[in-house]
Amino acid sequence: MSTTYKTDFAAIKQQFVLPEGMIYLDGNSLGPLPKATSERVKTCIEQEWGQELIRAWNSAGWMATPTRLGDRIARMVGAEPGCITTGDTLSIKVYQALAAGLELRPERRVVLSDSGNFPSDLYMAQGLLQSLGEDNELRVVEPEAVADALTSEVAVLMLTQVDYRSGRLHDMAALSEQARSVGAITLWDLAHTAGAYPVRLADCQADFAVGCSYKFLNGGPGAPAFIYVRPGLKEQVRPALSGWLGHEAPFAFDLDYRAGHGIERMRVGTPPILQMAALDVSLDIWDQVDMDELRARSIELSQLFIAEVEQRCPALRLASPRAPEERGSQVSFAFDEGYAAMQALIARQVIGDFRAPDIMRFGITPLYLDEGDITQAAERIELVMRDEEWRRPEFQVRAAVT
Amino acid sequence: MSTTYKTDFAAIKQQFVLPEGMIYLDGNSLGPLPKATSERVKTCIEQEWGQELIRAWNSAGWMATPTRLGDRIARMVGAEPGCITTGDTLSIKVYQALAAGLELRPERRVVLSDSGNFPSDLYMAQGLLQSLGEDNELRVVEPEAVADALTSEVAVLMLTQVDYRSGRLHDMAALSEQARSVGAITLWDLAHTAGAYPVRLADCQADFAVGCSYKFLNGGPGAPAFIYVRPGLKEQVRPALSGWLGHEAPFAFDLDYRAGHGIERMRVGTPPILQMAALDVSLDIWDQVDMDELRARSIELSQLFIAEVEQRCPALRLASPRAPEERGSQVSFAFDEGYAAMQALIARQVIGDFRAPDIMRFGITPLYLDEGDITQAAERIELVMRDEEWRRPEFQVRAAVT
Repeated sequence: MSTTYKTDFAAIKQQFVLPEGMIYLDGNSLGPLPKATSERVKTCIEQEWGQELIRAWNSAGWMATPTRLGDRIARMVGAEPGCITTGDTLSIKVYQALAAGLELRPERRVVLSDSGNFPSDLYMAQGLLQSLGEDNELRVVEPEAVADALTSEVAVLMLTQVDYRSGRLHDMAALSEQARSVGAITLWDLAHTAGAYPVRLADCQADFAVGCSYKFLNGGPGAPAFIYVRPGLKEQVRPALSGWLGHEAPFAFDLDYRAGHGIERMRVGTPPILQMAALDVSLDIWDQVDMDELRARSIELSQLFIAEVEQRCPALRLASPRAPEERGSQVSFAFDEGYAAMQALIARQVIGDFRAPDIMRFGITPLYLDEGDITQAAERIELVMRDEEWRRPEFQVRAAVT
Repeated sequence: MSTTYKTDFAAIKQQFVLPEGMIYLDGNSLGPLPKATSERVKTCIEQEWGQELIRAWNSAGWMATPTRLGDRIARMVGAEPGCITTGDTLSIKVYQALAAGLELRPERRVVLSDSGNFPSDLYMAQGLLQSLGEDNELRVVEPEAVADALTSEVAVLMLTQVDYRSGRLHDMAALSEQARSVGAITLWDLAHTAGAYPVRLADCQADFAVGCSYKFLNGGPGAPAFIYVRPGLKEQVRPALSGWLGHEAPFAFDLDYRAGHGIERMRVGTPPILQMAALDVSLDIWDQVDMDELRARSIELSQLFIAEVEQRCPALRLASPRAPEERGSQVSFAFDEGYAAMQALIARQVIGDFRAPDIMRFGITPLYLDEGDITQAAERIELVMRDEEWRRPEFQVRAAVT
């Protein structure tokens, strides 16, 4: 007995390619293919590139695409228009935002983050800080300790809103407010909240945000990242990655860089047009979705999944917060043989993923999952656990990408 | 009467989509579409992404693609195997190489470049040096003055091998040798030589090189860039853009960065798989091409183009070096009304491009141009110039991308 929504989730599910018999609980790693994507990319290749060639930068609107897509994402993350552009990878956008944020607090030397942040964010910070010199410090604390560690020493508070392993959700509003009160800049990574949770960047007065579009946004493998800079800062920040498409006049070919207007300055090089065509299609689907309803539906399905799995599989320990309001749109279970158990489950066509050391991770994505999928997934997990299928040797072999 | 080649250029021309009636002399800006690209990208989308989903990172070999493509490019630029990886944009790769190069010469403060370098390379250097502090200097001299300016003050010599406006070719062997003699690191941008000229990175003992794949390589709009680090340095350089896919063990999700083996450390974030599928196809064509024959053919066609245009259009002044050995694979003419003249020419289906202030630029690409194309192009240029078609008001209007 589910709630009535304005968003027609059943109709939206029909807009995705979902292989027969497969239950896909890994949309928080790589979202599935929208049915319309292939044809749109074909048009981009055959008509735009093939027939228009170089002229397509104007005639097909390629040059304006990165920020046009940014504006399409804005509603989903509660951003003002004209404050998001797309391109590059999430790691590059983290670097860009962090470099800009640090320059806004030149007298401070600490970047504060937590051990629940995605490692690449920490790596990019390490790389940047090492370039900037020895007196900078990346301070990584436990997620629960962030609020206490947020002092006036902190130049930038850099957090991923949802922990990629546990799904634990940070309180963006409270931490952003606290950061402002101590004069720290905020940088939020929305990798696991864009398209999964009604992010409210403007309401929270976040300074910077970044995210990827290949997870919940369903933009495809290697889809472009995005970056947000709040209105009060976007004309003020210096882009450390000062590429020609962020220049005020790219085609003047001046020898000196002059930052472009607003968010345009966060563009760097030539955008990946085929990937952007694919993302454009998936955003057509997102236009049909109310984000608060998405959240309600995510909680419904997640609660059902937890209840079903816990009832059927006593060996699995819930590794996500039990309270839905403290959790993003994923459910994780800990199990010592989690790697092998996930391989066994994938062999049964339930696709989740594994995160070291012992996390079995399941993305709950209301755009293409319903109660039937959730229940079936739990049934198959039960089979894997009851019969200890994970003991089979073939499931113990580690693949390159896990 | 043309030379006999082992490379079957006529057969290769048949492998491209070339719109009826169009003569495409802008392959140095965006290469045309190979006929096989669309089907290959479709397979990537529908079979790999659509059916394999997350598993395609292993099953379809996605994870290994960036460096596999790098090895395919290696032969074309005279690089050793295992020294090139692909991804990101050319601007990002310039930043990566320059940051690494500067750290190899910590006691020096000067980056030497020239005014013929592509502006984005200079912009990226400006952005990086400003981040690193005030005592660094980007010294930009005239192309002819580079050798004299190459002193022991120079940390990194950063040059584009071929000038994007004039086509003037730098002597990579001589300048690299001179750089070594003064202890400077070399960083070569191959944007206008990869796929256009038999680059000899290993023979020249270049330290770093970068390039794009959407021009002569025909990888499509926004195709990935590449980066080369020579064998003696690739285990030694620190990646300033230290993303997770350059980590020694990306899926260990350690909190600390450890550089991956060799060129793998120059990877950053999740690679753009659709763009890489497109590039893979264009490299199938390149496998059929002998690079020295390509160069010979380029010179034949360029000499013909210069002779035809100069004979027909006295108002156009050759803006490229007249000696073929001093020129890349493009021919430029200067004309005060060059912008409008190029628009008029494009209306006549001869596609070149314009570079401020007065350069009409024509890419000479033997993979899909022959003597007939060159002669026809010259005939149409003659019509535009003889009848002063560029005076028409519609050709004076500037487009966003020129």
